[in-house]
Amino acid sequence: MTTADPFSHLDETGRARMVDVSEKRITRRVAEASCRVVLSAETVERLARLPKGDAYAVAKLAGVQGAKKTADLIPLAHPICAEQIDIDVQAVSNGIAIRSRVVVNARTGAEMEALVACSTAALALYDMVKGVERQASITELRLERKTGGARGEFQRQE
Amino acid sequence: MTTADPFSHLDETGRARMVDVSEKRITRRVAEASCRVVLSAETVERLARLPKGDAYAVAKLAGVQGAKKTADLIPLAHPICAEQIDIDVQAVSNGIAIRSRVVVNARTGAEMEALVACSTAALALYDMVKGVERQASITELRLERKTGGARGEFQRQE
Amino acid sequence: MTTADPFSHLDETGRARMVDVSEKRITRRVAEASCRVVLSAETVERLARLPKGDAYAVAKLAGVQGAKKTADLIPLAHPICAEQIDIDVQAVSNGIAIRSRVVVNARTGAEMEALVACSTAALALYDMVKGVERQASITELRLERKTGGARGEFQRQE
Amino acid sequence: MTTADPFSHLDETGRARMVDVSEKRITRRVAEASCRVVLSAETVERLARLPKGDAYAVAKLAGVQGAKKTADLIPLAHPICAEQIDIDVQAVSNGIAIRSRVVVNARTGAEMEALVACSTAALALYDMVKGVERQASITELRLERKTGGARGEFQRQE
Amino acid sequence: MTTADPFSHLDETGRARMVDVSEKRITRRVAEASCRVVLSAETVERLARLPKGDAYAVAKLAGVQGAKKTADLIPLAHPICAEQIDIDVQAVSNGIAIRSRVVVNARTGAEMEALVACSTAALALYDMVKGVERQASITELRLERKTGGARGEFQRQE
Amino acid sequence: MTTADPFSHLDETGRARMVDVSEKRITRRVAEASCRVVLSAETVERLARLPKGDAYAVAKLAGVQGAKKTADLIPLAHPICAEQIDIDVQAVSNGIAIRSRVVVNARTGAEMEALVACSTAALALYDMVKGVERQASITELRLERKTGGARGEFQRQE
Repeated sequence: MTTADPFSHLDETGRARMVDVSEKRITRRVAEASCRVVLSAETVERLARLPKGDAYAVAKLAGVQGAKKTADLIPLAHPICAEQIDIDVQAVSNGIAIRSRVVVNARTGAEMEALVACSTAALALYDMVKGVERQASITELRLERKTGGARGEFQRQE
Repeated sequence: MTTADPFSHLDETGRARMVDVSEKRITRRVAEASCRVVLSAETVERLARLPKGDAYAVAKLAGVQGAKKTADLIPLAHPICAEQIDIDVQAVSNGIAIRSRVVVNARTGAEMEALVACSTAALALYDMVKGVERQASITELRLERKTGGARGEFQRQE
Repeated sequence: MTTADPFSHLDETGRARMVDVSEKRITRRVAEASCRVVLSAETVERLARLPKGDAYAVAKLAGVQGAKKTADLIPLAHPICAEQIDIDVQAVSNGIAIRSRVVVNARTGAEMEALVACSTAALALYDMVKGVERQASITELRLERKTGGARGEFQRQE
Repeated sequence: MTTADPFSHLDETGRARMVDVSEKRITRRVAEASCRVVLSAETVERLARLPKGDAYAVAKLAGVQGAKKTADLIPLAHPICAEQIDIDVQAVSNGIAIRSRVVVNARTGAEMEALVACSTAALALYDMVKGVERQASITELRLERKTGGARGEFQRQE
Repeated sequence: MTTADPFSHLDETGRARMVDVSEKRITRRVAEASCRVVLSAETVERLARLPKGDAYAVAKLAGVQGAKKTADLIPLAHPICAEQIDIDVQAVSNGIAIRSRVVVNARTGAEMEALVACSTAALALYDMVKGVERQASITELRLERKTGGARGEFQRQE
Repeated sequence: MTTADPFSHLDETGRARMVDVSEKRITRRVAEASCRVVLSAETVERLARLPKGDAYAVAKLAGVQGAKKTADLIPLAHPICAEQIDIDVQAVSNGIAIRSRVVVNARTGAEMEALVACSTAALALYDMVKGVERQASITELRLERKTGGARGEFQRQE
């Protein structure tokens, strides 16, 4: 990828327009994304000590449901019928790490779905901890991996 | 706020449940949030050189529309009728800075709306630059300020 | 109203932004709109001869449901909780006349709701007659009347 | 097409029912529609003189997002995954002309999507000019062209 | 209540129309509903033995999110902003019992929200057990209690 | 089917996760469901005597529109594009019987769509009769038949 590559939904003058994918081939595409909810170690521990783990279940479901709404949220995204949406939520030393994976057979990839899944899961988690730690933030929301598209594989470089 | 404060939508055993706000007073509440799309200086410049500024308009509208869908995205958020949703999108040296402000007269605050506005605007922007810079990420999504609620003002400390 | 009046959701440079209505008073507001589906007399008659009147019921329900989605469809419209949505569908000599009425106690009017109600009802009707008369069109979609707002009454002039 | 053609979603007694398209072939289908927002020359000029062109960008995005919601708005329309939604917004002497084009590989056509795209774009535009010219109306919302379906091409006759 | 009472959203000829509630007073209203997912004792036990209780969390969240969509699902229901939605899910000898409670300050009650909450929670549960017991059914979905409206209290009689 | 069959969206520890259907074959799948609104004979008769049959049309449309929202309502359901949604509403001696049929060419079945169609139609009907008979309930919501999937036919046993 070079800077000569075009913007995805902007023509050369900067006007927004949805790309026509109707002539592309249907292929099986996988996209993975991740982000982190930055929390104090104390809050992470308090969450972990709760006998019921609903907080993580809420975040995962919010991520799955969010991914399904991607075309509704992102104006120029194409609607697709996701065939798997998987969300992983893990406590880490400095917060909660979220990772998503979306699979679809389609003419366009699922990277926006994977990113929306992560951001929605993270925001749902923030919604539950905000009374305890309002300074919490969400960081490093990004695409990790993408396979199956016309432009080849993508694997994030650190 | 101390760690003795309860989790917002979790009972003491960790079970998720929506808070009952029906006995709270209606007050005018304002919430502000922010985040940044991390981009190379080169991509920021390319965006700035485009004669038409649709990219920023798309991001702003996505943010406004996203904020209206907050209760649909965040499982335990209360539905509210936002009375202003304002999104500011600015090029900065290391990316695009996004800031939102949501105003509502309600029994509950609009902080989740402000955060969803920022994340949706940022994701819509990512969707347009991803063909040019797929390594782009979204960072420091956080609440900046909150006024008008029962628990007093909140102003983020750096 | 003069041409010096500002655009509703555009600042003086043409940038889109949602108006802040949070300081306005809640008043009872009524908006009425209308439009017409232009059909041949023959198709109007065929519809009228059908023993079951589902076509009109479908159009009315689509109008009611469409009005509830106004803030989702019109990017800068404020969400409101409509308190009545009434749709009237009548055969006329040159088509089907649709009229809507939306009532709400709110800080902002329901004119967009009334217009979306009419257009959605008309499109639902078109969807049913398109196999018979694809040249059908929708015309004169417009606000008829508006009361209860800060800027006084509006009554369409012919 | 003759008047013997059946109504699209009505049985012979007038009862509404969704057509079964599950046995149809998937073909690439294109639908185009158009409409016009009737405005005074003065308002058209005022819009054109604004340094920022957000008004048109708002209308276009509303059209794209509206098209994606077609199956949610039109009760008997089949859900499809649109593969391109293109909206063109042009100032003309007596208003703003809107034209849409929707492409999909599907078992059913995209004519309702094309019409919803136009009406939503037009209503979003009305929402921005209503403070300046409340008498504005929307007219001649209609299908222009349709290709790729089982029943052959359609081209509007003037 | 007698059979002389009118149908809620039908006029005396049977035409559907949304009731005008704009002149009613805002009062605090509570509605409770219940239903049961009929399951074999064996399946109930298998669910209970699972170390993670996500199944119940999924059902509860689906119920909460479903309740928020009531006006979108029930054509003539008025949109309201629910101020509490509480779902209780309990294993009983012959299945899973679901109970909901919705609270709102509004001009109209929340009984439809309470019913939609129960049915959506029950269907989400069915979706998880259907691979094990496809004969599962949902039964006795009904309003249990209603307070705060103009027509007085309602308490279901067994 | 034996009790050794796995739960549909739960792993062996009880954690919720969406099944990956991306490697399944697309086949034509049909699902049928049913339920009943329990009403007194008197109310059924009153409904039948109304000159306009909008009540049934409202219920049918609500069912069709509800089915399209299945993936939005049921957290772990896969989005599909239903190709037919048919709802039948019949007065019976002890209430109103509702039956749905959903057809789709997809990698996953439409049983949840068929069930959501029935429950939404039944709730829409309840919404219209609740002023007359608030004790009305909804019962025996269940899958009747399912064909076209990998696991063979399902036909409900009485």
